[in-house]
Amino acid sequence: MNEKRLQKILSEFACKRNWEQFHNLKNLAISINIESSELLEIFQWKKDDEIKLDIKNKQIKEKISDEVADIMLYLLRFSDLAKIDIEKSCLEKIKKNKKK
Amino acid sequence: MNEKRLQKILSEFACKRNWEQFHNLKNLAISINIESSELLEIFQWKKDDEIKLDIKNKQIKEKISDEVADIMLYLLRFSDLAKIDIEKSCLEKIKKNKKK
Amino acid sequence: MNEKRLQKILSEFACKRNWEQFHNLKNLAISINIESSELLEIFQWKKDDEIKLDIKNKQIKEKISDEVADIMLYLLRFSDLAKIDIEKSCLEKIKKNKKK
Amino acid sequence: MNEKRLQKILSEFACKRNWEQFHNLKNLAISINIESSELLEIFQWKKDDEIKLDIKNKQIKEKISDEVADIMLYLLRFSDLAKIDIEKSCLEKIKKNKKK
Repeated sequence: MNEKRLQKILSEFACKRNWEQFHNLKNLAISINIESSELLEIFQWKKDDEIKLDIKNKQIKEKISDEVADIMLYLLRFSDLAKIDIEKSCLEKIKKNKKK
Repeated sequence: MNEKRLQKILSEFACKRNWEQFHNLKNLAISINIESSELLEIFQWKKDDEIKLDIKNKQIKEKISDEVADIMLYLLRFSDLAKIDIEKSCLEKIKKNKKK
Repeated sequence: MNEKRLQKILSEFACKRNWEQFHNLKNLAISINIESSELLEIFQWKKDDEIKLDIKNKQIKEKISDEVADIMLYLLRFSDLAKIDIEKSCLEKIKKNKKK
Repeated sequence: MNEKRLQKILSEFACKRNWEQFHNLKNLAISINIESSELLEIFQWKKDDEIKLDIKNKQIKEKISDEVADIMLYLLRFSDLAKIDIEKSCLEKIKKNKKK
């Protein structure tokens, strides 16, 4: 994934729409939470077997893909503002998890 | 970001610990939610000015980085199981957002 | 609040629509999360001053009231199934908090 | 449930600890979300059968009861500040749900 490129697109998008005033770390952490809930909502009342079938349905797959993207886009925007290199963070967290 | 490499590490980690039985899409969507809340908790009672100072503190920065990683790692694991290419999902979602 | 009466209404509602099969503690905890996010969404990009004005707007007040109710209704249903007396739980938790 | 009494205790508790400055609707909606995630975390990797056994365990039951209380207490505090009568909200929402 080319994060820098995606972050640049998101930054320009926010700038053009005058959204920079709203994009602080607290608000973006809220947005990540809201989008995560929207992903979870797809599975709210489902059992494992149904979900395995659902994922083969093109429309449901697209809905899931859109919600994954929404979380990812806010996570990229958050990381850009917090000056966090997500890949580096992941590798360091994996190291910590392995020690546990 | 080399997602495939991270996803391979996560997959082997789950396999070794016999966690594959727990890693279904519903449970992983729950995990993304829980980790998102842990990121938000850092900012729960804070005002913008404080957060701008906090982010310069090495310990708080590391805590934020760890929570971002936790969300990202579960999102990568979820996408691996759902056979979703996150970067492609992001680019398609950006296209949809631009049309709005 | 007459919780028992509300819980009885909810239980009959679930029974009539054949929803009892979906109402287990895990699914209801998911529902509480989703409804909490919908409440938070109302304030996602807002500043304190705006929210103080918003709350005086009848339509926004009704939207907030509906989301509060959605959380409460799932919390009542959850407590019914878990055999938890919410008021007693609250009083015990307040005692613990005072000791901190 | 005597909400007014609980709300009075919470209001005095916040006043004594000088927490009123932090208790605005946005922050309290965040808190409801965080506590809801802590409830969900108890069930994160569990299957229905295990949860049915867990709930009979005194320690787990107390943990669940504490998390239910944490959500309820923030919901009561939120409703107090938003001047929302929770029981009335619930009855109105049930009416709307019945029409669906």
